[in-house]
Amino acid sequence: MEESPIVPAADLPMFASVLIAAARIAPHAHVTPVLRSHALDALAGCELHFKCENLQRVGAFKFRGACNAVFALDDGHASRGVVTQSSGNHGAAIALACRLRGIAASVVVPQGAPAIKLAAIEGYGARVVRCEATMAARDATAAILLAETGATLIHPFDNADVIAGQGTAALELLRECDALDAVLAPVGGGGLLSGTAISAHAPGGGIEVWGAEPIGAADAHASLREDRCITDMTAQTVCDGLRGHLAPRTFAILRERANGILLVEDADIVHAMRLLWERLKVVVEPSGAVALAAVLQHRERFVGRRVGIILSGGNVDLDALPALFAMASSNRKT
Amino acid sequence: MEESPIVPAADLPMFASVLIAAARIAPHAHVTPVLRSHALDALAGCELHFKCENLQRVGAFKFRGACNAVFALDDGHASRGVVTQSSGNHGAAIALACRLRGIAASVVVPQGAPAIKLAAIEGYGARVVRCEATMAARDATAAILLAETGATLIHPFDNADVIAGQGTAALELLRECDALDAVLAPVGGGGLLSGTAISAHAPGGGIEVWGAEPIGAADAHASLREDRCITDMTAQTVCDGLRGHLAPRTFAILRERANGILLVEDADIVHAMRLLWERLKVVVEPSGAVALAAVLQHRERFVGRRVGIILSGGNVDLDALPALFAMASSNRKT
Repeated sequence: MEESPIVPAADLPMFASVLIAAARIAPHAHVTPVLRSHALDALAGCELHFKCENLQRVGAFKFRGACNAVFALDDGHASRGVVTQSSGNHGAAIALACRLRGIAASVVVPQGAPAIKLAAIEGYGARVVRCEATMAARDATAAILLAETGATLIHPFDNADVIAGQGTAALELLRECDALDAVLAPVGGGGLLSGTAISAHAPGGGIEVWGAEPIGAADAHASLREDRCITDMTAQTVCDGLRGHLAPRTFAILRERANGILLVEDADIVHAMRLLWERLKVVVEPSGAVALAAVLQHRERFVGRRVGIILSGGNVDLDALPALFAMASSNRKT
Repeated sequence: MEESPIVPAADLPMFASVLIAAARIAPHAHVTPVLRSHALDALAGCELHFKCENLQRVGAFKFRGACNAVFALDDGHASRGVVTQSSGNHGAAIALACRLRGIAASVVVPQGAPAIKLAAIEGYGARVVRCEATMAARDATAAILLAETGATLIHPFDNADVIAGQGTAALELLRECDALDAVLAPVGGGGLLSGTAISAHAPGGGIEVWGAEPIGAADAHASLREDRCITDMTAQTVCDGLRGHLAPRTFAILRERANGILLVEDADIVHAMRLLWERLKVVVEPSGAVALAAVLQHRERFVGRRVGIILSGGNVDLDALPALFAMASSNRKT
């Protein structure tokens, strides 16, 4: 058991921070399309609006937050480079954002990270530093790099600029789609969901905000239920992007602004992913399909309503697909 | 050897027909997004603008032409229904367009058509009538249905309204992307490429128009080279949507307006398809990836230029992917 650290309100991003982020990243990030599918609407019994962050640069919403944080640095700090820890998409996003700004990036990567995501980080020109897959090893490795270089640490989600950047996805979604009743996003460390909640609670907003989480990595669900930031659960899920835990900033935001966290089984997540490939014709990674899985498995909450879904990423190893599909078809209960 | 039938100019669609089609289908069809990928630009050595007709309703551009032709019928003809022949996407497109208009549709389907496309046709409520996989059997079966019902035949490409409808994809692409130098589309029966050529040659246009064709179904290439409409070649390609031959209308348009047809190997088509999945994060069927394959295999023609590519469809059986990928990786020469 640990106490939830208290984050001063001044260290949390506000809606104005999201607006500033939107202007800052506009020269670099894609305004991603919002797609519809009559077939998926019929299946879910509600009106679904899919914000395609799998079509964002580096294939994930992570580019928004990383880009905002990297371009928010003053020139003095920027010149000493950036360090981060990431099992994947955030690392690639930092690598690309630093390349665009012309500064050095080092990414601490735990053993077991997907090869496709490692290749992306290196492809964008960042230095990859491997370490063991524990939080302690990651922190220690990052600390050494920071001491060596004087670089700035950009945490994947416990960072106000990162959270504000992630909020720009929902900002665009809500501007494009009038009168949504609810919006859902996956929750791992909670950066995307926190940013989404800030945008959804903007003046004139006030729509429901739901997180979607694999049942094998249900720490955010448990944290909100027990009202303390739980960081000692072991994750077991195919969603490699959702194995992180909430951090002080994301916990502080979500306990105030999220309506709740909906849990889904891995097999239902892979089934939802396949539906997105077959019906929406977009490539979504398992972590990116969790919100659709939640709408389908918690149907009664959303039936007849207008629902926004953030498809968070599309970085999946195509050679691993047959095994994923086989797992889903043998394990689905519904 | 056969003579190319002469089509009176009055039976060919003009740019005005495309504008009328755009207005007619606007309540029903998606305005599909145009996507970019820095990685694919770097690979091709040119600036690529992908018009995502795989994200169109029924998963293919075919909905544009079918919708235009079905809604162009007067009420008297419409009330007697529509008959068509199709191995797939056009059949599904006619089925959906007729459902939207509230009229009957019968689709003649040859043996060997992909199961995923058959299921789509039936899912949209059309009557499926099977026949042998010869042109003669398809024509005879359609003739019987027409005699029985008094329905209107809507040919998949040898139809001015269908061609005009297909031209709306390039119309949207050219309106969204200024100053393209060239646009490429796959060619099977030639409906999409003909419509594309009409839009590309509109006043103020005048950009290059290239067809992309599998080397195993190179009848359009041969037809333009020999300046006669060749319809007796046997197709052997993974691109099930591109096995048709040109018809009088599409031949007449393409011999005047296409800069040429670029040929590509099946293995290179599947490789391009995989690149689109991995880099653009969209699901494209083999037939839909032929134009990117052509840009990559005929690099010198496009290097340094601004190029539009129509991704024509996304209806692919995911369970067949491992076999497709294995074929491509063992057969690629480049």
